[in-house]
Amino acid sequence: MDSKFIVIEGLEGAGKTSAIQVIVETLRRHGIEDVVFTREPGGTPLAEALRRLIKDGADNEAVTDKAELLMLYAARAQLVETVIKPALARGAWVVGDRHDLSSQAYQGGGRGVDPQLLETLRDLVLGDFRPDLTLYLDLPPVLGLQRARARGELDRIEQESLAFFERTRQRYLELAAKDPSIVTLDAGRSLEQVAEDVRALLENWFTARERRP
Amino acid sequence: MDSKFIVIEGLEGAGKTSAIQVIVETLRRHGIEDVVFTREPGGTPLAEALRRLIKDGADNEAVTDKAELLMLYAARAQLVETVIKPALARGAWVVGDRHDLSSQAYQGGGRGVDPQLLETLRDLVLGDFRPDLTLYLDLPPVLGLQRARARGELDRIEQESLAFFERTRQRYLELAAKDPSIVTLDAGRSLEQVAEDVRALLENWFTARERRP
Repeated sequence: MDSKFIVIEGLEGAGKTSAIQVIVETLRRHGIEDVVFTREPGGTPLAEALRRLIKDGADNEAVTDKAELLMLYAARAQLVETVIKPALARGAWVVGDRHDLSSQAYQGGGRGVDPQLLETLRDLVLGDFRPDLTLYLDLPPVLGLQRARARGELDRIEQESLAFFERTRQRYLELAAKDPSIVTLDAGRSLEQVAEDVRALLENWFTARERRP
Repeated sequence: MDSKFIVIEGLEGAGKTSAIQVIVETLRRHGIEDVVFTREPGGTPLAEALRRLIKDGADNEAVTDKAELLMLYAARAQLVETVIKPALARGAWVVGDRHDLSSQAYQGGGRGVDPQLLETLRDLVLGDFRPDLTLYLDLPPVLGLQRARARGELDRIEQESLAFFERTRQRYLELAAKDPSIVTLDAGRSLEQVAEDVRALLENWFTARERRP
């Protein structure tokens, strides 16, 4: 099978890290060893520098919604052009901890940025480049925040109000409902149960594709 | 007269700093004391952090054209929303060392980014916000580079080839020719002569506006 770009999405505390481990184990079982991991925003020195600016701001200056959005896309443009596309071209698989759907959900849902503006910007920056498969781990924000808090300090974005995350979740669900490449999984259960769902889903996805001529 | 946003544009070494001094003196003669200066990219802590990333990159990583462009617009969005528009709203005049025209000329001309993409991005980020007057200091790139080198080290963008700056100049001239709010001045002469032209042009501009009812 040609190399693919698989993305894991969801609110903080949804279990993305565990899901990525399951994805890697599944890829290995199918003989795929050359796997590149990315996280967004980040994944190159420039994109990681932008990640720090996005998460922490500069000198306590409030970051405007548009500046935040444009920094996210600057980091994404750099990552896609210098890491993701070259990896796919040489035959590696790419597993992404977040990608464009996060911007559509957090900025379009949470921040209330015009979804039409977001789509235009996405098309300007990415053209028609999209993940082959996105797993969206869905859970009530209050549960995700409890898990994230248990792990330590929350950053600027994680400190947003619960209403922000409710709007973000709503937008995730809307977008997943109209895009067949996005699969929604119930992440409100134990990590083990979610891992089992990810494993089963990926196995089905592989089976469907390996059967094709 | 209502407060205005005046921008000075041109290649490195065109004499922008001297021109800004002339603008300030002229504003003072007309009783305007509340003047805010901006430079782009930059002008807020976040935008200055982005300026450093744009000029120096991170860990010697090559910055892609799109990432550069999006960082420029992130810095511009932050500056316009948090500095320029609030200053104009309280009645201050704003004098900008570069603004959007630089991106249209350097990225669209020098880097060869699709001008249509640039215009779409500009409209997405800035809406219909534009300077009231832009002075474009035009000079042959070879002359500008000689002046810039005499001032010290050149940064990543200043080290571009002469052909890059020729394309940038060409785009500046094209854009100035079709926008009546952009005035082109011959900056290939002495700083004193250029200063005199800036002074005369601004005086005419003031006279034309002060005569209006």
